[in-house]
Amino acid sequence: MALIVQKYGGTSVGTIDRIRNVARRVAHHHAQGHQLVVVVSAMSGETNRLLGLARELSAQPDPRELDVIAATGEQVTIGLLAIALQEIGLQARSYTGGQVRILTDNAYTKARIVEIDEGNMRRDIEAGTIVIVAGFQGVDAEGNITTLGRGGSDTSGVALAAALKADECQIYTDVDGVYTTDPRIVPEARRLDTVTFEEMLEMASLGSKVLQIRSVEFAGKYKVKLRVLSAFEDPEASGPGTLITFEEDDTMEEAIISGIAFNRDEAKISVMGVPDKPGIAYSILGPVAAANLDVDMIVQNIGASGHTDFSFTVNRNEYLKTLDVLAQERGKDFTAREIIGDNRICKVSVIGIGMRSHVGIASKMFKTLADEGINIQMISTSEIKISVVIDEKYLELAVRVLHKAFGLEHAPVQAA
Amino acid sequence: MALIVQKYGGTSVGTIDRIRNVARRVAHHHAQGHQLVVVVSAMSGETNRLLGLARELSAQPDPRELDVIAATGEQVTIGLLAIALQEIGLQARSYTGGQVRILTDNAYTKARIVEIDEGNMRRDIEAGTIVIVAGFQGVDAEGNITTLGRGGSDTSGVALAAALKADECQIYTDVDGVYTTDPRIVPEARRLDTVTFEEMLEMASLGSKVLQIRSVEFAGKYKVKLRVLSAFEDPEASGPGTLITFEEDDTMEEAIISGIAFNRDEAKISVMGVPDKPGIAYSILGPVAAANLDVDMIVQNIGASGHTDFSFTVNRNEYLKTLDVLAQERGKDFTAREIIGDNRICKVSVIGIGMRSHVGIASKMFKTLADEGINIQMISTSEIKISVVIDEKYLELAVRVLHKAFGLEHAPVQAA
Repeated sequence: MALIVQKYGGTSVGTIDRIRNVARRVAHHHAQGHQLVVVVSAMSGETNRLLGLARELSAQPDPRELDVIAATGEQVTIGLLAIALQEIGLQARSYTGGQVRILTDNAYTKARIVEIDEGNMRRDIEAGTIVIVAGFQGVDAEGNITTLGRGGSDTSGVALAAALKADECQIYTDVDGVYTTDPRIVPEARRLDTVTFEEMLEMASLGSKVLQIRSVEFAGKYKVKLRVLSAFEDPEASGPGTLITFEEDDTMEEAIISGIAFNRDEAKISVMGVPDKPGIAYSILGPVAAANLDVDMIVQNIGASGHTDFSFTVNRNEYLKTLDVLAQERGKDFTAREIIGDNRICKVSVIGIGMRSHVGIASKMFKTLADEGINIQMISTSEIKISVVIDEKYLELAVRVLHKAFGLEHAPVQAA
Repeated sequence: MALIVQKYGGTSVGTIDRIRNVARRVAHHHAQGHQLVVVVSAMSGETNRLLGLARELSAQPDPRELDVIAATGEQVTIGLLAIALQEIGLQARSYTGGQVRILTDNAYTKARIVEIDEGNMRRDIEAGTIVIVAGFQGVDAEGNITTLGRGGSDTSGVALAAALKADECQIYTDVDGVYTTDPRIVPEARRLDTVTFEEMLEMASLGSKVLQIRSVEFAGKYKVKLRVLSAFEDPEASGPGTLITFEEDDTMEEAIISGIAFNRDEAKISVMGVPDKPGIAYSILGPVAAANLDVDMIVQNIGASGHTDFSFTVNRNEYLKTLDVLAQERGKDFTAREIIGDNRICKVSVIGIGMRSHVGIASKMFKTLADEGINIQMISTSEIKISVVIDEKYLELAVRVLHKAFGLEHAPVQAA
């Protein structure tokens, strides 16, 4: 008997029939003797419908009230799933974020989980009841309703698994696991049986979109065993999905490339001709962070004649706002010759463990792109990835040639 | 400066434009210097949509989960109205029933309010903030979401007015006050400037449908000044509606008929040939009450040869269930020659203060109906009403001739 937290996204609960399917899948696991906590999203389209109503009233609706409205989406789904489970003879009980209670900070629309009270859930689980929890939401210390931001249901699932010390957190989605890259771009893409936490973190943040990045960070922090599976396969016949592991195999000397990730949701901003002196990065990025804008890649070249160029990427839909912030701060906190940007770029990354010690991978990546005439605009590397920013129009081509160059269509041959 | 609780029903907040209209009306009263607490229903159609989803999954969904689902309707509206008020420059803050906190018992789908914590609302009101509260809902002592049953938003409004000792509770609806009868049946029907609490209670329970009966009871119990107004007239030019008063004018010797009420949502059940002995009423109605079925009129005739006939009315949609309950109990708790029923009946009532001492009113009512050939099946009287059960097909005719017979198209001439 294991305690399993399962999370079903909006598509998996998008219709009454699909909610019935989720109930059957939950019943299947319950019949195997497992204790279950099920986290659900709003029915697909519902969150957008609700936020749309608010936006009809105001271009910038109060975030507190937006959360009051948006949180109802998941609240409907938990009630429906509980009824669907009861209808097939199981005990089930729904909980809103506040009822659990999932305590968050008060950063409306992007709250962070502070603490989870497991008492109510534990009591129900011990009594053989299946616990259904609304994803994406919580309450702050004053009882205000908060939401965790888009994709926050994954985070809810992982956080609940951590609080309950669950044996596994299963994220059900519309794909049956994590692939070497997007199969819609590279038909030969292969499902990975396991992927390390660090690789998964890169895959998620780089746009593979299977899991929300905060949920993977959370899983890593609390060592939650995380598995990605398909919500749409027959429960009796469904595959094992992809397990996210947290132990690197230290004996592995060969670099293993696990996948090609990409992200077209970014925009590039360059602040040209800034004084090359200590504190300049902070003087540029401080105001950006203060405006709550997330920065991804940051590149600064070595300067010449006392000046340097400073580039970074932001979410594409925060591109204009970021330019605004910089225009306001320019001349106050920093001086610059020119601020330029480009929102028609994409980021493509080669992901794999043990990459830093294998410079051959970087050169192979750059040569593969050069052979296709693709210009590299920015480069950033880490322990387990090499990312490049290129013109958006080359995205598919770059992913395909890199997938082939690293032989990802074949299962890796493990080094001894 | 007064503290006013305003309640807006589902039709008044049925679209984004109507929510904007409500915001303008609230702003109009705020500009006059009043402190405001606004109670809202779900957008019209929304509660039915939500319950419909649940019923697709189960013929008899768990009431606890139904309430979790249904309560989201009002939760969306409070957020939207708060945003609409903020958009026109006012401070506003939404509260779910649980956030207020409106404590109820745990009778899901028909919970009763036990206590209201006014602390949060009072703090906001004092700070000049308009408080928006979700009608129809509360939480039980364990934090489960409850709803008050259909029409419960009126009750929420009155209960909040009582808790806050508000100067007035204004119920905004799609009519501009309480009429002598339904103007759709009698075009000459006249709006009443005032109506006593007791008359209003009868008007509401007998199907005049302007206010939910429990809200009127609540208003009477806590002496809340209650006013019915139109949500659709221009706030600048709207009439005074109808004020519900709680003091009878003791000097009044003339009976004043205030209106003709009717209800076609009832069914009649007769238990024939039961032993005429103490306890028989309880042995029949005890099981009915235990099955949570509401009984309205009860009539028992004087018996002959040791047996009597016992009749009562129930909600029409609980007719078959009531017959079922009686069939099961017959022969156990009571014996009967026959149990018969009729669900094609209606109830028509003449409502007025000081009626008991004026037997002429009853005889005028009975003669008026007899003149039209309308057979009376049951009669029940109280301090302020005479009700008859007649064949459903005569409803409109009976209401029209009674309205005319009592001269209700003219304003009453007060007795000295």
